[in-house]
Amino acid sequence: MDRKNFSRPLSLRSVQITDDFWKKEMELVRTQMLPYQWDALNDQVEGAVPSYCMRNFKIAGKKNLERRERGETFREPSYTFRGFEALPQDPRHPEDKFYGFVFQDSDFYKWIEAVGYSLTQHRDQELEKTADHAIDMVCAAQQEDGYLDTYYILNGKDKIFTNLKDHHELYCLGHLIEGAVAYYQATGKDKLLKAAMRYADYTAEHFGPEEGKCKGYPGHEIAEMALVRLFEATGEEKYLNLGKFFVDERGRRPYYFDKEHPEGVKDQPGGLRYAYNQAHIPVREQEEAVGHAVRAVYLYSGMTDIARLTQDESLYKACEKLWDNMVDRKMYITGGIGGTQIGEAFSFNYDLPNDTAYAETCAAIGLVFFARRMLEMKPDSRYGDVMERALYNCILSGMALDGKSFFYVNPLEVNPEACHKDERKAHVKPVRQKWFGCSCCPPNLARLLSSLSAYAFTETEDTLFVHLYMGSIVKKQVNGKEVTISISSGLPHSGKVAIEVRGESVPFTIALRIPDWCREEAEGEKAQTGFTLKGVQDGACVMRDGYLYVTKSWNPGEPMTLEFAMDVKILQADPRVREDIGRVAVARGPVVYCLEEADNGADLHLLTVDCSAGTRTEVYTVAGEPVTSVVADGFRQKLPSFGKGLYHSLKAAVKEPVKLRFIPYYVWANRGENEMTVWVRQEK
Amino acid sequence: MDRKNFSRPLSLRSVQITDDFWKKEMELVRTQMLPYQWDALNDQVEGAVPSYCMRNFKIAGKKNLERRERGETFREPSYTFRGFEALPQDPRHPEDKFYGFVFQDSDFYKWIEAVGYSLTQHRDQELEKTADHAIDMVCAAQQEDGYLDTYYILNGKDKIFTNLKDHHELYCLGHLIEGAVAYYQATGKDKLLKAAMRYADYTAEHFGPEEGKCKGYPGHEIAEMALVRLFEATGEEKYLNLGKFFVDERGRRPYYFDKEHPEGVKDQPGGLRYAYNQAHIPVREQEEAVGHAVRAVYLYSGMTDIARLTQDESLYKACEKLWDNMVDRKMYITGGIGGTQIGEAFSFNYDLPNDTAYAETCAAIGLVFFARRMLEMKPDSRYGDVMERALYNCILSGMALDGKSFFYVNPLEVNPEACHKDERKAHVKPVRQKWFGCSCCPPNLARLLSSLSAYAFTETEDTLFVHLYMGSIVKKQVNGKEVTISISSGLPHSGKVAIEVRGESVPFTIALRIPDWCREEAEGEKAQTGFTLKGVQDGACVMRDGYLYVTKSWNPGEPMTLEFAMDVKILQADPRVREDIGRVAVARGPVVYCLEEADNGADLHLLTVDCSAGTRTEVYTVAGEPVTSVVADGFRQKLPSFGKGLYHSLKAAVKEPVKLRFIPYYVWANRGENEMTVWVRQEK
Repeated sequence: MDRKNFSRPLSLRSVQITDDFWKKEMELVRTQMLPYQWDALNDQVEGAVPSYCMRNFKIAGKKNLERRERGETFREPSYTFRGFEALPQDPRHPEDKFYGFVFQDSDFYKWIEAVGYSLTQHRDQELEKTADHAIDMVCAAQQEDGYLDTYYILNGKDKIFTNLKDHHELYCLGHLIEGAVAYYQATGKDKLLKAAMRYADYTAEHFGPEEGKCKGYPGHEIAEMALVRLFEATGEEKYLNLGKFFVDERGRRPYYFDKEHPEGVKDQPGGLRYAYNQAHIPVREQEEAVGHAVRAVYLYSGMTDIARLTQDESLYKACEKLWDNMVDRKMYITGGIGGTQIGEAFSFNYDLPNDTAYAETCAAIGLVFFARRMLEMKPDSRYGDVMERALYNCILSGMALDGKSFFYVNPLEVNPEACHKDERKAHVKPVRQKWFGCSCCPPNLARLLSSLSAYAFTETEDTLFVHLYMGSIVKKQVNGKEVTISISSGLPHSGKVAIEVRGESVPFTIALRIPDWCREEAEGEKAQTGFTLKGVQDGACVMRDGYLYVTKSWNPGEPMTLEFAMDVKILQADPRVREDIGRVAVARGPVVYCLEEADNGADLHLLTVDCSAGTRTEVYTVAGEPVTSVVADGFRQKLPSFGKGLYHSLKAAVKEPVKLRFIPYYVWANRGENEMTVWVRQEK
Repeated sequence: MDRKNFSRPLSLRSVQITDDFWKKEMELVRTQMLPYQWDALNDQVEGAVPSYCMRNFKIAGKKNLERRERGETFREPSYTFRGFEALPQDPRHPEDKFYGFVFQDSDFYKWIEAVGYSLTQHRDQELEKTADHAIDMVCAAQQEDGYLDTYYILNGKDKIFTNLKDHHELYCLGHLIEGAVAYYQATGKDKLLKAAMRYADYTAEHFGPEEGKCKGYPGHEIAEMALVRLFEATGEEKYLNLGKFFVDERGRRPYYFDKEHPEGVKDQPGGLRYAYNQAHIPVREQEEAVGHAVRAVYLYSGMTDIARLTQDESLYKACEKLWDNMVDRKMYITGGIGGTQIGEAFSFNYDLPNDTAYAETCAAIGLVFFARRMLEMKPDSRYGDVMERALYNCILSGMALDGKSFFYVNPLEVNPEACHKDERKAHVKPVRQKWFGCSCCPPNLARLLSSLSAYAFTETEDTLFVHLYMGSIVKKQVNGKEVTISISSGLPHSGKVAIEVRGESVPFTIALRIPDWCREEAEGEKAQTGFTLKGVQDGACVMRDGYLYVTKSWNPGEPMTLEFAMDVKILQADPRVREDIGRVAVARGPVVYCLEEADNGADLHLLTVDCSAGTRTEVYTVAGEPVTSVVADGFRQKLPSFGKGLYHSLKAAVKEPVKLRFIPYYVWANRGENEMTVWVRQEK
């Protein structure tokens, strides 16, 4: 751990994403998801389960107003009520009380975070106006003492912080902070930031190592990394200290959760107990990624942040071990994590079932958070590789091509009949859903996709790290001078990247991740690079931990070009992954492929791929989206004309040669309900 | 359907099983299971979940006694209380009330049924004394009006027959009848039979097509076939009529269960609703085997009985369709049925997962019941083949070699780590359990194994059908003369069978099932027989529907010998069974084989079998049991020395040749916890 090597993301305002592929996703977020989600937050989507999110804020604000009118007023006029619409008449729920999940507030916070990010890329006036207005509504709900969680405001403040294990108050605080900082950094407007600080202050009064303070910690993590972010935005050490306190206290014995629940704790799904919350042992002793996968990666992200800021070697070591365990034992080839729906959790090592996978979109997003933070600590391409894998596969799969429907669960094998008829697979949806009662994934997608540049790039004083390749214009300060780095990328279709620096000629370093997918794995020797670099002298380049450091004076008009090999690869899983034995997957560049019934007919299990025959790529269109498809030789086993009965003497299978068409996993399920598989049986 | 061809089982008292293999199982039942189960029924097994079964009868009897002492007396002195032991002091449950499952009474009934059967083979005085005494206790609990279900006797008789869907009263009636008839037929003692008739009379007063009578039917079937049996034992038509009424009424709209539960019915597991109970549509319209597998085969058995006795063509057709669906789409190679633990139910067609199988022992036993009844209607070897398959595999697997521990669930693939760590497989136990809270399987095993001759043989006036080969001495009436047929069998070790008739020379027919496993399946032509017959003239033999009918005057000292080919077979599943694609199973004779970790090392998924290399059999000992093992050539994929990460470019797998040792499935899990698989990957 070497502090001077730590890199940090650039301000989103310093980076404009111009990439063909990703800009389209970001525009989907801005033009489709954010308006849709705003409607959803306001229960305005016909046929969808009501969110109640904004309604809860409004009712809490209304009650504040009533208290003010009764003279039990707020002291700070800046937080007074500034008006909100009349509450919609809801015949189902006519009362002025809280509805929805205990964590319903967080849906707004994720939305406002995404709005903030989006405004850095496109200052959409209408959207900003809506957001400002929404912030007014939310702030109107804040209590005089700073407390802000509508569940307890409306259900009784005497119960505040009495059920940290299950009730997500600190989770909502975390998301409030994330949203507030994002909106402040995007717009300079600090109203929500101040509200977040006041709630964080209130929380810091309640929790801490000092005698008499509560020794609890969040049941669902996120506050840890959010408090770090608040510290970094405000310079207030107490926020960092509170985050660190939560991390340090977690999993200590006697368990805080036992104390909180003297009535006894009902076991968590899967018999996980506090492992579900990663609170079974102190975090520095944790070596295996366990429990609810989203909570896990949120925690690990916070741990990494705190390790960076406090130079905490033991904490960092724990992060490394957890990373390795997760990536080397518990991650799907798509970057999905969470092998079981029971507890939405990690399963045991190497247990990665394809057809009952959980692989929640949010968990893959959390994995990206964790990866970026590991990269900040140490630029090693294996973190960037995983980040890219999750992004192009499990995460993109979470959203339909039109941005209007979403997967929670991202399975690697789907037989729709089984999803409908087999309750064991009921969590696996063969088609994306419009919106969810528990709607964590769509807003999480919105906030990630709107802030991609925070993952694509980090910087130190003299180095720009390029972790992900996407067309961008990056402004960076080098020795007090601003340089503009213009990047273009053909990904995911081609491996061509061009980088040009504009402005004054200044010497600095651009460090380029050399992706794992362009390297050939060779027995016994170091990996070989699979890229061509032009426009740079050899002497300017150093390769370290998978990054190519190019140091020189960058002159305008002297572009550097990189071309990564984008060969189609036939991949196998570690044979300890029982579900994948005898099967192969196809990938090209960062993209994992799959077979879909629409292209290959039903009964995908009857297909085998001839791995010796070579493959070719072919431009193809899936639901209007041009993709690079992969065509491979294979066979389809014919259904034999057995007599009655299921079991017969072995005969040579009758197989007909077929062309298999693989499409990117991220475009599957855009052509109606049908079968899909990532892992295909290997024809010997 | 031709009534004159209907065959019936012989009285158990006419058949003595002398078979080496099966007699040992029967002796295990007599010497181990029945005493153990009696202790269990009396809560005398240390460390086991108490049954409360006999305790409930005793408490009900005690309350009867108290009523008699208060002058609210019984009229019939033959049912008066004759004494029972003092109730054991149970500090956990000190009160005189009902404990256990609603169907707890049935455990005794299954036990007494097994005792009855066992006494026909070995008149164990001690056991009979215990049984007589137990019958006294049970009869003492019967109400003056004939009602006999301790759950309602102890919880309030006003609720009798108000929850047919869930409360198993008619199920208990069914088991009472089965036990009572069995004990009567074995011993001639009719005390329990009379009690059963009185309860059946009470029930027939309540239910029926007549106006004013209840139109309900059992939530858990068995009464249907039991009432037929009571009719056949007593000649009382009303019992047949009641059974037929239950069958006819089932699944009619408006649903009786809806009427019974005006508060609304909670959905059954797996969204099955009344399909769980096979009550979703009228039985004659049912074509797919659905819902709880045990209930299903009990119903189908009753339907077949009633079709036979009432010459009901449409009912028989439904039985045939249900049989075909089950056997051709939903049966494991072991004869197990029930692809999902959710609802302990059939899954959809071809969904036969190996590692999450339910394949309950009781369901395979019920399949044997159904098969025997189909054979009675029409001697076709495909029924006998399935009966034999279930018996030698799924059913025998249900019991440890020492008869002291039991499987409920009989999976075809077990990885103990997954059973312990993955809640989705929590129902799959890697080792047999001592006894169960819901202890249906062990007593069901006991009653089946003690009455094997009822499945091995049926007869018409002039024909003895041999459905299963086991050493036996069978006495049969032919034209008013008793002939004794002596059968010896080498199964499951060899295919040698010898049959000799003693006594006077009388002409009659012996019809011998030619098993599917000795026939070669040949493309396009009729199956070839794979057996050698000696001691009979060709002219005496006719082959029909898989049975060889040998008609002649059987002279003493002229044995007929049969030898069935017992080649090792490599089998494949219909490719529509996704879980088995690319895999093969090994069988020899009626026995399905498996690989167990104890013989082949861990990580069985890394093994492949070379199907081209031939196999050899080898005598082998598993936990003291001599078996015919099968040795095959195969390979073990080595774990590659990958670097970090789970996914790598495909390389030729490094495999070492190994000898695979297959053991009979029925002896697996007798050497501690370890991996097992029936289906093994095929090496091309």
